[in-house]
Amino acid sequence: MPRPSLSEALFTPRSIALIGASDAPGRNNSRTQLYLRKHGYTGAIYPVNPRRDEIYGEKCYPSVKDIPGSVDHAFVTTPPQTVPQVIRECGEAGVPVATVFTAEFAESGPEGVKLQQEVIDTARAVGVRLIGPNCMGIYNMDPPATIAPNLILELPELLKGNIGVVSHSGSLTGTFISRGQARGMGFSKIVSIGNESDISVAEIGEMLVDDPKTEAIMLFLETVRHADAFAAMARRAYAKGKPVMVYKLGRSAAAQEFTASHTGAIAGTDVAVDAFFRQHGVIRVNYFETLFELPMLILGREPKPGNRVSVVSTTGGGGGMIVDCLGVAGIDATAIPEARAKALYDEGAIFSNGPLIDLTFKGTRAENVSKVLDALVEMPECEGVVMVVGSSAQFHPELALKPFLNLKGSKKPLGAFLVPDAPESNRLLTDAGIAGFRTPEGCADAFRCALGWQPPIEVPETHASNIDAVVQAISAKPSGSLDEQESREIFDRLGVPQAASGVAKDDDEHAVAIAKDIGYPLVAKILSPDIAHKTEAGGVVLGIHNAAELAAAFETIRTRVTAYSKDARIAGFLLQKMEKGLGEVLLGYRHDPLIGPTVVLGTGGILSEVYGDVAIRVAPVSAETARGMIEEVKGLAPLRGYRGLPMGDLDALADAIVALSNLARLPDARIREAEINPLLVRKKGDGVVAVDGLVILG
Amino acid sequence: MPRPSLSEALFTPRSIALIGASDAPGRNNSRTQLYLRKHGYTGAIYPVNPRRDEIYGEKCYPSVKDIPGSVDHAFVTTPPQTVPQVIRECGEAGVPVATVFTAEFAESGPEGVKLQQEVIDTARAVGVRLIGPNCMGIYNMDPPATIAPNLILELPELLKGNIGVVSHSGSLTGTFISRGQARGMGFSKIVSIGNESDISVAEIGEMLVDDPKTEAIMLFLETVRHADAFAAMARRAYAKGKPVMVYKLGRSAAAQEFTASHTGAIAGTDVAVDAFFRQHGVIRVNYFETLFELPMLILGREPKPGNRVSVVSTTGGGGGMIVDCLGVAGIDATAIPEARAKALYDEGAIFSNGPLIDLTFKGTRAENVSKVLDALVEMPECEGVVMVVGSSAQFHPELALKPFLNLKGSKKPLGAFLVPDAPESNRLLTDAGIAGFRTPEGCADAFRCALGWQPPIEVPETHASNIDAVVQAISAKPSGSLDEQESREIFDRLGVPQAASGVAKDDDEHAVAIAKDIGYPLVAKILSPDIAHKTEAGGVVLGIHNAAELAAAFETIRTRVTAYSKDARIAGFLLQKMEKGLGEVLLGYRHDPLIGPTVVLGTGGILSEVYGDVAIRVAPVSAETARGMIEEVKGLAPLRGYRGLPMGDLDALADAIVALSNLARLPDARIREAEINPLLVRKKGDGVVAVDGLVILG
Repeated sequence: MPRPSLSEALFTPRSIALIGASDAPGRNNSRTQLYLRKHGYTGAIYPVNPRRDEIYGEKCYPSVKDIPGSVDHAFVTTPPQTVPQVIRECGEAGVPVATVFTAEFAESGPEGVKLQQEVIDTARAVGVRLIGPNCMGIYNMDPPATIAPNLILELPELLKGNIGVVSHSGSLTGTFISRGQARGMGFSKIVSIGNESDISVAEIGEMLVDDPKTEAIMLFLETVRHADAFAAMARRAYAKGKPVMVYKLGRSAAAQEFTASHTGAIAGTDVAVDAFFRQHGVIRVNYFETLFELPMLILGREPKPGNRVSVVSTTGGGGGMIVDCLGVAGIDATAIPEARAKALYDEGAIFSNGPLIDLTFKGTRAENVSKVLDALVEMPECEGVVMVVGSSAQFHPELALKPFLNLKGSKKPLGAFLVPDAPESNRLLTDAGIAGFRTPEGCADAFRCALGWQPPIEVPETHASNIDAVVQAISAKPSGSLDEQESREIFDRLGVPQAASGVAKDDDEHAVAIAKDIGYPLVAKILSPDIAHKTEAGGVVLGIHNAAELAAAFETIRTRVTAYSKDARIAGFLLQKMEKGLGEVLLGYRHDPLIGPTVVLGTGGILSEVYGDVAIRVAPVSAETARGMIEEVKGLAPLRGYRGLPMGDLDALADAIVALSNLARLPDARIREAEINPLLVRKKGDGVVAVDGLVILG
Repeated sequence: MPRPSLSEALFTPRSIALIGASDAPGRNNSRTQLYLRKHGYTGAIYPVNPRRDEIYGEKCYPSVKDIPGSVDHAFVTTPPQTVPQVIRECGEAGVPVATVFTAEFAESGPEGVKLQQEVIDTARAVGVRLIGPNCMGIYNMDPPATIAPNLILELPELLKGNIGVVSHSGSLTGTFISRGQARGMGFSKIVSIGNESDISVAEIGEMLVDDPKTEAIMLFLETVRHADAFAAMARRAYAKGKPVMVYKLGRSAAAQEFTASHTGAIAGTDVAVDAFFRQHGVIRVNYFETLFELPMLILGREPKPGNRVSVVSTTGGGGGMIVDCLGVAGIDATAIPEARAKALYDEGAIFSNGPLIDLTFKGTRAENVSKVLDALVEMPECEGVVMVVGSSAQFHPELALKPFLNLKGSKKPLGAFLVPDAPESNRLLTDAGIAGFRTPEGCADAFRCALGWQPPIEVPETHASNIDAVVQAISAKPSGSLDEQESREIFDRLGVPQAASGVAKDDDEHAVAIAKDIGYPLVAKILSPDIAHKTEAGGVVLGIHNAAELAAAFETIRTRVTAYSKDARIAGFLLQKMEKGLGEVLLGYRHDPLIGPTVVLGTGGILSEVYGDVAIRVAPVSAETARGMIEEVKGLAPLRGYRGLPMGDLDALADAIVALSNLARLPDARIREAEINPLLVRKKGDGVVAVDGLVILG
């Protein structure tokens, strides 16, 4: 037999070895074999167990190497310590891929990490690719190959569908099937990726992008690994019209810690992960249940960002809940424009107009409902429709629900919230391919996702010369923090305006000459290799107006710094023009441990930290993205002209953000961290100016 | 027949008149009659319709006055314009209460408001009490009296239960029954209160408090009316061990607007409503579905505030979702303390400890699950338990779910999140009286509610003399704003420290004498009946150090104020000691249109507004409540010693909050609004001092 491709070996293996097979009822390693046949796998199954001759009617082999035919896929359930040897034998037997169910590897502590490394090293050495370890298996629905012991396979039948799933959680693969099927949703392929030690979420994602049976990709993630490969996969999925939808743990600090310990993954910043998903056109849901309705809002549609949804209701209370939840999710419930409403009234339509388009008791008749709905579908102000149906959903779907079903095929995202428990009407929705929400909160989350969905952001071009200049400036420097003057130099070369300054030796006369060049009033700051926190050390004096004050400032700094740290060396003083702005910001650049280079904007200061009020994006960014960041930081409202305050120079601020974000273009990620704090923002037209900053080299 | 009590007339009427009865199939006014008999009402039914002799086998009457027997309850479905006359006839016929289904009253605009007033006036004149108008009816489950046309009554049977419901939304009364029954939850009584024109939510609530068949009260509210009566009802319910649970619309601005227009209700501040509920021991849920699980977490338990919940799981992914959602809701997922965990391991228990207590695949066996759960129930660090069950919930409830069911009757709130779709296992939970959550978000919300539930807050005592002094100060004043000096006087009498000050006539010499008394440096502020915004008018000069500067400041103010407003009269100048603090706060007192007197604390300034970072409580408050407010305002972190900053005098700040909140004790709500902004907070031990403020009399 020719060697299969990796995708073939995973999803359509012609033969499967079950290493650690068993005939003890109810054991994981016996269930897998039974489930395979039960769900229609027609290839060869080779149980491997040295203590059996036959299991469930299939000949059993002492080792994978003893199997006469070639094996496309091995499923491993033997104890952890045996796994390296099992993988070695797989390699020797020419098995291209092994799915390792066995747990107690990287997720279980330092010894497990070591053992997992041994498994990976062995696999690489013998040319076996790995899924897992600590995974629940892999399910192909058509043709059937369910290589997993998951109890969900007790179900008599599995629904086929067009959604491919990859999950860090093994048990949730069963949940997808269970909750999906309860709503009439089927899947194409499901992969429990476990500890993701070799084959990654991204690599499976790429296979799903190429899979003609998969039209959307759904991920349950505890972390993000291989960010670059993930990004490339997401972009290719987008280009092929296959939306990628993610539920990721880690909104709370507790969950971040937990997943770090549970999966051996590194904790990153959750908001940085948000930015990463947005950057690459991935949709992140907030509510788990959203995953089961969102495909119906977006499949077959292009992203069309917006935030206006029309809510039509037969019930004031139920409709009010949707309006409220949409509002909390940042979506406007949109009334029918007055002229259009008047025209509808003139045609005899019955409804009460407003954020809730209330059909009222009287208007809950098919003909009237259709009249109102048809108007909404035509209306450019309406970017999506939620139909809220009260008691009639349960007993008289023909009154309000059925007219809504006629909108099937509309280009706008459509969803219904049936206020009562109305399983049969929900089934009507599923059959029509229209989302049917069980909760008002889930409905709002799904519309937030659908209308917030954006194409991947294009990485802007830049002037390579800027980058070259920065590379030159740092090429000879060792890793660690640069001093303020060196940091200024980097920012300057990037194109961020700096306050005029000069370095004076620890010598009053020299300083006076430099001060004259810069011009008073001035700030003097200590330069010392031994002082990391200048202000804390008393190494900064503001508001120096003349030579006498300058000399006094030096003396003050010398005394305070010596008191702070007896042996601190004084390399000199940085003299800097004292600048003023309408306001100030913190502008930062950081390598997030999960997703790489990011740029951060905040108001700076303690309150910025307290409120967590920052905007983060994947670096580098375009001016447009930078403007989006400025909009996002609530605390910058005064600079945006809030309550008639003078506008700050937001164009210049955007330019500075773009400039700093270009650090991401440096080769070898040499700059680990950079921060300008504060960057003063002057009034519109007068630009921005950096007055302090720090660069840390990697 | 003796005249029934109002509660008897509403819930156990011996006879019901259906005014506007019909035999046209499917009409509201025909359904009510059919449903009454269908669900077992055994009293007399008198259809009223001048064009029929008999409807569905009951003799029909032209008017309620023609009915021979006495009528306990009238249900009115005639057109809006006829309702005043119908109510008059009810009065003449001695009917004690009418439930008005008819809509198009206050909810539909100014004409409806007028018509509704006519109905109320008539009802008062003739001694008829009213439910509605614009309501869906009223359901008593036992003995059955379902006086409503709601389609939900198509159900073959209604579950009896121990929960009483009052809803502003009529259609949602059906939803309660529908969603409740789907989960095995029944009700005692349900009232659609409609426009709440006469009988209020509070009044029905009082009846439910006294109803032996009701053990908990559930409210769906679009607004709060009759706040005092509502508060009294909630407190009495608490005292009788009947929790009050509320879903209230209005989290978003859009919903606030919508409910204001939809129900003719006034919009209040949603956070003030939150404070109101907390004040009176009412639990507000964030998620609609929480209503259906929360009773099982709290019924029969005393409030025991906390925030530590143990999460036990058979699935890492499912458990991780709960840990994450709890974290977002502010609840700590609590590990087993190390020593206890070690002891459990020594006894052979299998689990991985942490924020998620992961039973792992191996540990998902009944005996092991019980061992871990028993430990949690004993553990004082654990204030509630969430059991998360993966695929086994669907196919093998005996493994993990059943051991959990054995905890039934525990004093700690217990809930299960079944990750797959597992309706049968959910039924097992319902039967055991244990909450079974469908979504991780709903689970977290319910535990937030259960552990955040607190007894009603006792209103603290005060020194009546303070209040008397304030009453004296304002007794002669007309309504409107007081000037700064008059406002200071009020704050001073309340006991809030004021910056030393004096009023100088528009005369430099007089001013110099006063300044000497106060001591430099000083601030000078204009006093003018024509200037509302002193700073805007240029009427304030800071940092006056001597007599010369004082004279110059007066001159500056005169010039600027005249330029600002040509004819502004100058009544004099307020001279005030220039004060400094570690930080400043805004301290306000307001009459919320819905819930009455509130006290507000914020950081003041634009950012306080931008972030909405304020703490609000019902006034008056105790020192303990005031300290809770100080904790709650994020922007006060610096004054709380954040990152080693010097602590502010928070005791003095709490005293000032208490003092201002005492304005609520004034008779006749004479003070509508008061604001001290800023109140400077000095370092611990040095107190607080108000430097500007305003009082508005009603």
